[in-house]
Amino acid sequence: MSEYIRNAWYMAAWVGEVPADGFLARTLLDRKWLLWREADGGWAMVADRCPHRFVPLSRGTFAGGRIACGYHGLTFDGSGACVHNPFGGALPDSARLATMPVVERHGGLWFWPGDPARADADLIPDFTFIDAGAPVDRSHYVMGVNYELIADNLLDLSHAEFLHVESFGTNGSLFSHGAHTVEQDETGAIWNKWDMTAAPPPGWAAPLLGDGGTVDQALHIRWHAPASLALFIAMHPTGEAQPLVPPMANPHILTPETQGSTHYFFTHDPGPEAEAMARRVFLDEDEPMISAQAEAMAGEDFWDLKPLVLPSDKAAILARRKLMQLRRAEAE
Amino acid sequence: MSEYIRNAWYMAAWVGEVPADGFLARTLLDRKWLLWREADGGWAMVADRCPHRFVPLSRGTFAGGRIACGYHGLTFDGSGACVHNPFGGALPDSARLATMPVVERHGGLWFWPGDPARADADLIPDFTFIDAGAPVDRSHYVMGVNYELIADNLLDLSHAEFLHVESFGTNGSLFSHGAHTVEQDETGAIWNKWDMTAAPPPGWAAPLLGDGGTVDQALHIRWHAPASLALFIAMHPTGEAQPLVPPMANPHILTPETQGSTHYFFTHDPGPEAEAMARRVFLDEDEPMISAQAEAMAGEDFWDLKPLVLPSDKAAILARRKLMQLRRAEAE
Amino acid sequence: MSEYIRNAWYMAAWVGEVPADGFLARTLLDRKWLLWREADGGWAMVADRCPHRFVPLSRGTFAGGRIACGYHGLTFDGSGACVHNPFGGALPDSARLATMPVVERHGGLWFWPGDPARADADLIPDFTFIDAGAPVDRSHYVMGVNYELIADNLLDLSHAEFLHVESFGTNGSLFSHGAHTVEQDETGAIWNKWDMTAAPPPGWAAPLLGDGGTVDQALHIRWHAPASLALFIAMHPTGEAQPLVPPMANPHILTPETQGSTHYFFTHDPGPEAEAMARRVFLDEDEPMISAQAEAMAGEDFWDLKPLVLPSDKAAILARRKLMQLRRAEAE
Repeated sequence: MSEYIRNAWYMAAWVGEVPADGFLARTLLDRKWLLWREADGGWAMVADRCPHRFVPLSRGTFAGGRIACGYHGLTFDGSGACVHNPFGGALPDSARLATMPVVERHGGLWFWPGDPARADADLIPDFTFIDAGAPVDRSHYVMGVNYELIADNLLDLSHAEFLHVESFGTNGSLFSHGAHTVEQDETGAIWNKWDMTAAPPPGWAAPLLGDGGTVDQALHIRWHAPASLALFIAMHPTGEAQPLVPPMANPHILTPETQGSTHYFFTHDPGPEAEAMARRVFLDEDEPMISAQAEAMAGEDFWDLKPLVLPSDKAAILARRKLMQLRRAEAE
Repeated sequence: MSEYIRNAWYMAAWVGEVPADGFLARTLLDRKWLLWREADGGWAMVADRCPHRFVPLSRGTFAGGRIACGYHGLTFDGSGACVHNPFGGALPDSARLATMPVVERHGGLWFWPGDPARADADLIPDFTFIDAGAPVDRSHYVMGVNYELIADNLLDLSHAEFLHVESFGTNGSLFSHGAHTVEQDETGAIWNKWDMTAAPPPGWAAPLLGDGGTVDQALHIRWHAPASLALFIAMHPTGEAQPLVPPMANPHILTPETQGSTHYFFTHDPGPEAEAMARRVFLDEDEPMISAQAEAMAGEDFWDLKPLVLPSDKAAILARRKLMQLRRAEAE
Repeated sequence: MSEYIRNAWYMAAWVGEVPADGFLARTLLDRKWLLWREADGGWAMVADRCPHRFVPLSRGTFAGGRIACGYHGLTFDGSGACVHNPFGGALPDSARLATMPVVERHGGLWFWPGDPARADADLIPDFTFIDAGAPVDRSHYVMGVNYELIADNLLDLSHAEFLHVESFGTNGSLFSHGAHTVEQDETGAIWNKWDMTAAPPPGWAAPLLGDGGTVDQALHIRWHAPASLALFIAMHPTGEAQPLVPPMANPHILTPETQGSTHYFFTHDPGPEAEAMARRVFLDEDEPMISAQAEAMAGEDFWDLKPLVLPSDKAAILARRKLMQLRRAEAE
């Protein structure tokens, strides 16, 4: 079990997950939180725990930007202040809820669990591509494993050749025609890039090319600490500037729910069919494999288990190292 | 997790729960026990664990006040003595079952898990009111939380205004017309009393009063360590000696099954309808809230969590302090 | 929890449990292993865990004596060597699977989890009787308790008089007509023997004898460390050399799956009826009792609980002592 990075932006929810006249209750980094939209259009994010008897306020009654505890009636507003005490009398300073900075960006709500004074919204990773492209649906589900194992999975896309061979495989051209590079950019992001040159096209693409035509294919993934990833896919007829099909960009934003479970925020083409396809890949292919990995690791530290390191692991290992550095810095 | 108080009376069962020609097996304070009525009308209470291979004797055969182990046949009587050894030969002193003092009182069976020499039956809290009033049914169920959290719940009846607003609420008159006092009596009991004066009556009571008539209402609860409580409710037309409806008195006797589960002994008007009503309040209203509280506390000590303390918590806090004093005294 | 004995033979599986063109995946002594038959007729036993990301190889693809990881494609043969790396390039020495010596004997596959140099196949306990007698079916199931508790059960067959009174009981003649001896033989095995002389016959045997005829009955069990047992049953008309019914010999071979679960290998008369009978005794009679025992022991050490020791426990106690000696020797 590794400490969470605290001075960093995490995504709490898609805006659309919060009911119009209510709140969203969600466990984030082991603690329960409430999110609601304030009358002024801003956002409230308060602890889902009454300071009196610790029961979840989400069991209470919400109206007009105030939540009343269902046990003894103490009522709080979005600033965390107690605004009603049925018993009358003054309340001590401890009668308030914890809060966190929360910012709406790219259709998501981002929170900063560390020092509020350092919560600079410019540090939120750039996901403007979500709204810049064709319309998408935003989805969310919880995967029952630690977020670092999911980031490992995404940072080594060669697994698509085996685990997703029927959906996202590249017919082996990743190995036969691919060049692998790992880069760090000016925002601190780590990029893992597979670039295939003059590769045989996948079956569905062959009819779009001339006889014997080949493709250049890019499979790039970007990681920002702690675990906000973006996947970029492009395919061109070899040597041509015009893409064969519109390039794809997808968020894969991971936020720890607990040490053993992770919120997974993603997008897909509109409609239930595309959502079912995405869930099939995540839930039927990735999750069972990563869960089996977590079970095999049995709570031991990744490095203590002395993993065999392949060149294709470079990006995942750089990301793990960066988290270790951040943890060490926060511990000091 | 707090040590159990050992030199105190706890209730093990209602007499009616013990089968006429058999035994009752029940876990009490983390250990398994057997209870049966002896031929002379007295009671046996012996450990439900064979000293040979530790299997529960309740898996064996009971007849004539003797229990034979279902594994290798050792047989014990209600004094804990081994009265039959299939293999013949003398047995060492360790071939006996642990026992506890057990006393029948007020239709319940009370046991003393501490020093038997100190087990003075006069210290059993007074519940004579159970048989003194109209006939009642005695019921029992297990609530999946620590007994101190249930005692907290009962010792602060203001929660009825929120959690039981549809069943036991007082239309807010507890806050608008109520006086709150906390007392200790000569038996060591702590009393939490809400007394409402000239309060608007509940809907069902209004027709029994003149136009604009008000009521005086008493909501008193009594606590004996470790967790035997009694609830007393009375309602009078304001200023009159004659009660509007017969006053109510109910036992709420709590015995730890384990650190995380509690036997709850209570009474209700005869018949299944009244039982269903009582269970609804306990199981559908109280238990989910207290379970959510226990989950939020996640095994941490109540005081370490620095609860916000309200004046209405006074009785619950006095009771928790008394348990701490008793624990400290027993540890010495 | 006690350390496993490592320098000893354990049974992994019946040969018939391994699919002809595939592998058997099984947890043994807390770790996952794969077993398959090699083209040369020998056996492979390799760790079911990829050294790269630790996922179970059993989630991958097996063909021609090679298993390919389902996550990133590393492929291993039965010697544990990595024979295919999709990424090309040299691999470090750590790119191999753990293996164990495995020997086929008496229709079972036996493994040695300790020092391979000490894995002398002559030390495998003798179960030639399985094939020497009438044909039998070989069966296996997992019992949810520690293997030492099952060995205790088998080493004290007097429990049949109580727990199996309807199937294997001897009408009490074990106590009234039985002599109990415990011996150690030249192979290091411990024998627990009940010999009944001139005992009243069981109901089914009476018609086979003359009026008032009695039987001599032997109930012998043999234990080899860590927990491979054999049961021998014989019945003769008193004083006669010719047995009344053919003598029976049955393996009861126990291999820890985990500290709290055990592989139980046994045989029975061919056909589903005999299997159902065996399972009834194991699953409906033995397992619930031993599970209740394990629950009552709550993870505490057997000796710390100060069990009452009966003369009939002698063999079980000698076996437990021998395991302690072996553990102590391995710890040095």
